Amino acid sequence: MKINTKPLPGMMELLPEEQIEFNRIKNIIELNYAKFGFSPIDTPAIERTEVLLAKAGGETEKQIYRFKKGDNDLSLRFDLTVPTARYVADNIGQLQFPFKRSQIGKVYRGERSQRGRFREFYQCDIDVIGREKLSVNYDAEVISVIYNIFRELNFGDFTIRISNRNIISGLIEGLGIEDKSSEIMALIDRAEKISSEEFAEQLNDLDLGEKSSAIVEFIKISGSCEEVLNSLKDMSRKINNERFSNGIAELSEVSSLLKIMGVQEQYFKLDMLIVRGLDYYTGTVFETNLDDFKQIGSVSSGGRYDNLSSYYSKEKLPGVGASIGLTRLFWCLRDLNLLSFNKRSEAEYLIIPMGKQELEKSFEIANEMRNQGKNVEILLENFNMKKAFKFADKRGVQYTLVIGDREILENSFFFKDMKTGQSISLEEIFKK
Amino acid sequence: MKINTKPLPGMMELLPEEQIEFNRIKNIIELNYAKFGFSPIDTPAIERTEVLLAKAGGETEKQIYRFKKGDNDLSLRFDLTVPTARYVADNIGQLQFPFKRSQIGKVYRGERSQRGRFREFYQCDIDVIGREKLSVNYDAEVISVIYNIFRELNFGDFTIRISNRNIISGLIEGLGIEDKSSEIMALIDRAEKISSEEFAEQLNDLDLGEKSSAIVEFIKISGSCEEVLNSLKDMSRKINNERFSNGIAELSEVSSLLKIMGVQEQYFKLDMLIVRGLDYYTGTVFETNLDDFKQIGSVSSGGRYDNLSSYYSKEKLPGVGASIGLTRLFWCLRDLNLLSFNKRSEAEYLIIPMGKQELEKSFEIANEMRNQGKNVEILLENFNMKKAFKFADKRGVQYTLVIGDREILENSFFFKDMKTGQSISLEEIFKK
Repeated sequence: MKINTKPLPGMMELLPEEQIEFNRIKNIIELNYAKFGFSPIDTPAIERTEVLLAKAGGETEKQIYRFKKGDNDLSLRFDLTVPTARYVADNIGQLQFPFKRSQIGKVYRGERSQRGRFREFYQCDIDVIGREKLSVNYDAEVISVIYNIFRELNFGDFTIRISNRNIISGLIEGLGIEDKSSEIMALIDRAEKISSEEFAEQLNDLDLGEKSSAIVEFIKISGSCEEVLNSLKDMSRKINNERFSNGIAELSEVSSLLKIMGVQEQYFKLDMLIVRGLDYYTGTVFETNLDDFKQIGSVSSGGRYDNLSSYYSKEKLPGVGASIGLTRLFWCLRDLNLLSFNKRSEAEYLIIPMGKQELEKSFEIANEMRNQGKNVEILLENFNMKKAFKFADKRGVQYTLVIGDREILENSFFFKDMKTGQSISLEEIFKK
Repeated sequence: MKINTKPLPGMMELLPEEQIEFNRIKNIIELNYAKFGFSPIDTPAIERTEVLLAKAGGETEKQIYRFKKGDNDLSLRFDLTVPTARYVADNIGQLQFPFKRSQIGKVYRGERSQRGRFREFYQCDIDVIGREKLSVNYDAEVISVIYNIFRELNFGDFTIRISNRNIISGLIEGLGIEDKSSEIMALIDRAEKISSEEFAEQLNDLDLGEKSSAIVEFIKISGSCEEVLNSLKDMSRKINNERFSNGIAELSEVSSLLKIMGVQEQYFKLDMLIVRGLDYYTGTVFETNLDDFKQIGSVSSGGRYDNLSSYYSKEKLPGVGASIGLTRLFWCLRDLNLLSFNKRSEAEYLIIPMGKQELEKSFEIANEMRNQGKNVEILLENFNMKKAFKFADKRGVQYTLVIGDREILENSFFFKDMKTGQSISLEEIFKK
């Protein structure tokens, strides 16, 4: 029987040169999380099904990878938030609050396979979790971390679109149309994907009478942060609902904090179309788009929630978090030919000993270079010169050093830069 | 219903301060793999069951986490070697050989839960895979990588015990007792766990007649590398079997290569008790023990195999690899109180703004420090002074800076070293 050696559909598997680039991006995310003082945690990929499904709805239940082992009903985690909620509930006495955690790991969803949809993918999450209360300052902080990461990743301009769930909820409350709340939010959530005629039609179907004009007015709000906040304040006077004005105040606070945190205004905007699902978030919500590649959709999202661990603990644990869907981001950028895979090897240097008697010197030089933190491969296969050079070329290292008897006799060792053809002495390499 | 918030038995889950130490160790392993020019790959945790069980025996099949999704028969990987074999077979035209790959990832085994046995654990693997042939030089290289890692990890002295499967196989062949081959190897494999009386008894049970004395002589071989090799050569003259002498020649070669690679002789020995299972390895085999903690058993092992991908490809792909069982290593060292968990946070610096008007200066200083690669947390919760200091203390950061109106007025900012109590100016911090 011929065994199928392809990875399963919906699971990304990369060639080494792609993996090196993937890891570089992952590393930038990881280092930025650490720079802001987030502590890493790592929960198991397998959980009790009852833990995972405590809150999750029907869609999640359908997608989950679930299995029995002995008497245990087990499942693979479908996100990192639910396991974190369990983790925090379990370790609450030993954590310091506000607890700033980061987690980067694989999650699993048995979705129908389609282009760019993954069944195994990396999530890169941060959350700040408070005990009883949590300052809105942290809402701005998690957004500023995402800002710093995308600046450093350098995939061109991007926009972090920010709103606050209390604004739309307060508006609906103020208009007295709470019975249509979820339909209205769902409609606003897809407003960008449909034409304005379709939007008007579907809004009309909701039978809100003259109140629908307020919804239309609301989603048309745009402009600079100041302009958006002014428009909202104008509406607030008419609507006169506390939740609505609280939402505006929080959004205003986050916006001004971002500026003093050094987040440049061209990179974020206040955007009333951002709703982010229906159940989870209770305050600040945001999404990030790459300006030149809007077709990718959101590359990072997050927001504020009232209580992380309500299903596992009686304590009130408000939180705010952000997430980067790394696998999808990588896949999209690769698909758009925006990534270059220059490094086929982790080694930047390759030493080629011409024969057995040159091995000792090769090890000596390589050891010294490695002690300096350099990545050095030695070709240990007995290739002839032609094959050795072909190997060097294919390996994609930047510098090669051939060691023969002459080099050893003259004690003279020069690396060759594979791009420029220039020679670089060992002394210069050590100074690099 | 109260939900059980403990992680599943057999799954290690760490507090942040432990996770930071775990990551430090993982990082040392990762960087050393890169230093020697191994390229990272990352295969999915879920594979087709037919791929995983192509070779595996009954024990593996019992332990595997297996489940259906749609019509697919899926399983969680139980090691990283089988997925790598599939990966290499699948990508053979796009890889450069010798292919040096590293993989660090979680693997799953549904073993009966017991102390120090894990159902989810990290393997940290390297392998060099050749096409058709692979120089024995690489056997020595993978061992030297393990040597470098344990030197850097600094968990005290360790011994890498090395043998070659051709020696014991050749001895058995030379004695003409191949029909008892697996029993003899299994007995040698457990020689250390039983008394010499038990060994003699069990050997006697095998009914080898006078040939059993050669086995006894063989397992008693010990001493320096030179002494072991001399004893083996003496036996070789009597046994006169090609495989036996080839094995000795290879072991001798690996031993001398290790020395010229800079592996100090006190850290490795040639040891005829090392067999490493029955099926897999075909040449060099090795295990690593921590000298002061022999009770832990082997902390790293590996060896040479004839053909990595025989179940998935017709090409002959000889390889040599090494593996560190990181989860178990960490667990054992923690259990022995050999690890210290000094860092409760990734941040080394904590800035405490006294009020809202000090936020801007705090962000400014933190941004500059982060640009320099420092990990800086700002306390963004509105704590009073007492609570803020308690927070600083608990967070376990090394330096704290309180910013009040006086500091801003005088433009004077001093970090306090939480251990020594010393003050350090911002200028000095920037120079660090």
